[in-house]
Amino acid sequence: MPLVRISIPASKGDAFAKAVSESVHDAMVATIDAPQTDRFQIVTEHAPGWLILDPTYLGVDRSADALIVHITLRAGRSDDKKRALYRTIAENLHARLGVRKQDIMIVLAENASIDWSFGNGEAQYAKD
Amino acid sequence: MPLVRISIPASKGDAFAKAVSESVHDAMVATIDAPQTDRFQIVTEHAPGWLILDPTYLGVDRSADALIVHITLRAGRSDDKKRALYRTIAENLHARLGVRKQDIMIVLAENASIDWSFGNGEAQYAKD
Amino acid sequence: MPLVRISIPASKGDAFAKAVSESVHDAMVATIDAPQTDRFQIVTEHAPGWLILDPTYLGVDRSADALIVHITLRAGRSDDKKRALYRTIAENLHARLGVRKQDIMIVLAENASIDWSFGNGEAQYAKD
Repeated sequence: MPLVRISIPASKGDAFAKAVSESVHDAMVATIDAPQTDRFQIVTEHAPGWLILDPTYLGVDRSADALIVHITLRAGRSDDKKRALYRTIAENLHARLGVRKQDIMIVLAENASIDWSFGNGEAQYAKD
Repeated sequence: MPLVRISIPASKGDAFAKAVSESVHDAMVATIDAPQTDRFQIVTEHAPGWLILDPTYLGVDRSADALIVHITLRAGRSDDKKRALYRTIAENLHARLGVRKQDIMIVLAENASIDWSFGNGEAQYAKD
Repeated sequence: MPLVRISIPASKGDAFAKAVSESVHDAMVATIDAPQTDRFQIVTEHAPGWLILDPTYLGVDRSADALIVHITLRAGRSDDKKRALYRTIAENLHARLGVRKQDIMIVLAENASIDWSFGNGEAQYAKD
């Protein structure tokens, strides 16, 4: 059910984008009960100066490699599941790609079951 | 009042993007009471591998031509109006452009009247 | 805490994008209590026909230079603070860059404290 928008620095290449995408998806499957095939993502790259993450906010030391993961999902996940999601996204990106954990920003946006159509013009999560 | 982000596969061209944009807008006018001139859209194209829609989730057979429509709108539309919106977007895209209905994902995000400024630095929907 | 997506017409250049980004951020610091270092933004440019703002909706006379500012922020700002934000974004962009105030669309999306991770895989706003 999630729609995931991932914004990464330019010039990282297709393989990096693919691995980021998989790392984020695997974390969602592991922590917030996303089915394996429930993968809907938009990955974009951004030239220097067009993707801006403050280098010190909240005492986190961010680099020019910092990236943003913006996830729209149905309401209902517990705070603990959200914390596990953040932790696992960071662990996956760090372990597989060497992304610094400080460089990973994640933002969630919640909506309702009726707010999703997965094709055929139907609201699959809200059939009556 | 809606802000519509449409993500399509690359290399479809300007005419396709324009027709998708019009098809989605016409569906909003027809089903959720959007005025004809209430059209605010951002259309982006994405290379293979950067726009990811699972090819089987929920039993829907998606192709490499699949696209995503992400709509921010004021809260208040009934479930039935949302269902009509999904159905009509799919019908328009299929009838006018031959897009497979399976290839159309739609996601809604709701906000409030105060959350919109349509110019001049004013909150036109929440004047007191 | 905000995540700001700014969509501008293509061919404006890096300096324009930077100045828009700073103008919007300064308005957030001045009006909705965003800390100076709380700056997280994605600026994108869009060719003619791919960034669509109706030229007359609600009686506002928009030009081909119109742009969109889409801000995700934690719930809790008063209506008056939101109005001040809109007014100040418009004033900054007009005074510094000559952007017409009619050409500035702003949309807000609210979420919760638990919905933010600013690095290290932690939910910094919702520590228990």
